[in-house]
Amino acid sequence: MELIYTLDILGTFAFAISGALVASDKNFDLFGVLIIAFVTAVGGGMLRDVLINAHPINWIGDLNYVWTILAAVITTFLFKSKILPLSKTMFLFDSIGLGVFTLLGLQKGLTYELHPIVALIMGMISAVFGGVLRDILTNKVPLIFEKEIYASACLLGGISYLTLDVLHLNNNINFVISATIIFIIRWVAVKYHLQLPKIKDDLFTKH
Amino acid sequence: MELIYTLDILGTFAFAISGALVASDKNFDLFGVLIIAFVTAVGGGMLRDVLINAHPINWIGDLNYVWTILAAVITTFLFKSKILPLSKTMFLFDSIGLGVFTLLGLQKGLTYELHPIVALIMGMISAVFGGVLRDILTNKVPLIFEKEIYASACLLGGISYLTLDVLHLNNNINFVISATIIFIIRWVAVKYHLQLPKIKDDLFTKH
Amino acid sequence: MELIYTLDILGTFAFAISGALVASDKNFDLFGVLIIAFVTAVGGGMLRDVLINAHPINWIGDLNYVWTILAAVITTFLFKSKILPLSKTMFLFDSIGLGVFTLLGLQKGLTYELHPIVALIMGMISAVFGGVLRDILTNKVPLIFEKEIYASACLLGGISYLTLDVLHLNNNINFVISATIIFIIRWVAVKYHLQLPKIKDDLFTKH
Repeated sequence: MELIYTLDILGTFAFAISGALVASDKNFDLFGVLIIAFVTAVGGGMLRDVLINAHPINWIGDLNYVWTILAAVITTFLFKSKILPLSKTMFLFDSIGLGVFTLLGLQKGLTYELHPIVALIMGMISAVFGGVLRDILTNKVPLIFEKEIYASACLLGGISYLTLDVLHLNNNINFVISATIIFIIRWVAVKYHLQLPKIKDDLFTKH
Repeated sequence: MELIYTLDILGTFAFAISGALVASDKNFDLFGVLIIAFVTAVGGGMLRDVLINAHPINWIGDLNYVWTILAAVITTFLFKSKILPLSKTMFLFDSIGLGVFTLLGLQKGLTYELHPIVALIMGMISAVFGGVLRDILTNKVPLIFEKEIYASACLLGGISYLTLDVLHLNNNINFVISATIIFIIRWVAVKYHLQLPKIKDDLFTKH
Repeated sequence: MELIYTLDILGTFAFAISGALVASDKNFDLFGVLIIAFVTAVGGGMLRDVLINAHPINWIGDLNYVWTILAAVITTFLFKSKILPLSKTMFLFDSIGLGVFTLLGLQKGLTYELHPIVALIMGMISAVFGGVLRDILTNKVPLIFEKEIYASACLLGGISYLTLDVLHLNNNINFVISATIIFIIRWVAVKYHLQLPKIKDDLFTKH
């Protein structure tokens, strides 16, 4: 559990930095940057907790999220020109966060005795909606809808977790394996520019 | 009740298709389309249930919503070029959904012992906010604010339901009558391009 | 308490008018204007109540909010050309609302036994998110992120309240003092065009 909590904080830090970078590119002031970083980092888990009625919701019950986000914004503020060349490091953190958030959300859903499919959707909401809210607040079409294999990676990792869970694999090992699957899928997808198909024309008609 | 449930599923299907069509026009990938369809179909009811603390919220308590949305997205994916010429059919479904969602939301509000006016607002939120969320996520000014008589139709149908309810009309008959009112108002409004007035200049001053 | 309630209603009225003015500038129809006014006026408190699980949420538990918003929209509708020259009056109301909403939210957070830092964030959410939602629904980058000292004023007023509360100052006096601090900071900031720093370049590197 402590490994998972550490990964959760790392993921929160990475998501907060990604939010802060987007907001500062938009020329937001310090407070705007803080809000966007906050929403990006805890927005997905917050929405999940509201939907499944899990109170106190994530950041209300544990101030470490607030401190982590504050640290991320200060880091961005002080070292912006040094972070950008580190984008590979950021991508690494972000991908870790993606895996961790998906599985934490899924686990929480199962703890609340949701149907596995609903728990899976909760995992995806946890991982994905922080970024969606970030994009809405900065008035962009959410990135995820257009070119990221993001959500598919979460889905497959979540299915892996549920499958191994049915097979009674140890929880921590399952967590690490399934998070790694999410991580690898996203990594490969970005490296080779893989995309999901789009509904341009329907499958049966060509013009 | 079974008639109403059937109409609910039909409305969900129609709203999901409307979301999927908008998302695929925006060139979203398969997952983006799925998310937009989901939010369009269950977003209004989800918001209502969160606001009135009705847990489990709509789609968490009944997986049929998820299957219906999945079916709608697959339908859109396979038959897009055939759906568009069917836009009259879609408009029909969508208008049915509008009426059904308004009255279901209103009924749920009354069940939770809300003041009738609050219940009426809940009905309108149920019917309208799925489309609003769809438009926010696809970065458009929500359609409803600009030219649809959408919300007014819901309001009048809801008032009809509350009035007939006070007169102790049978619930199902009341439901069908009031849903029909919503349906007809919208139909007539779209056909004759009726619009609500706008606050361009105030009523007392002309320049 | 009655003074505070009166200020709350005044703030609601002012926020509703600000929403109605933005929506009518966007050429929304009457219903669109009503929805935007509603969301602007009660959106922040609504979000706060959902997050801290305080049911019934603000406007569901007290219809006076609905009547106040309705009155504000009618006022806007009838007197739009007369309100705009009154923008100083509006700015006055809006600034009062800002202070009142911050402290009401903070107080509510403390009542729900949240950590003071979380209660402070709740105060800021109450004051600020109505405007953020207004800007999202009208498809603009939220004003607050770009040039307003808005959130900072709330933060400082909230810290003042918490500090004086620790010193056991009478609640009402504390409320008025801290609201006045928020009011003055905002007033001065707008008058002298004060802004928070931005993360354009990092502090240690010049290029």
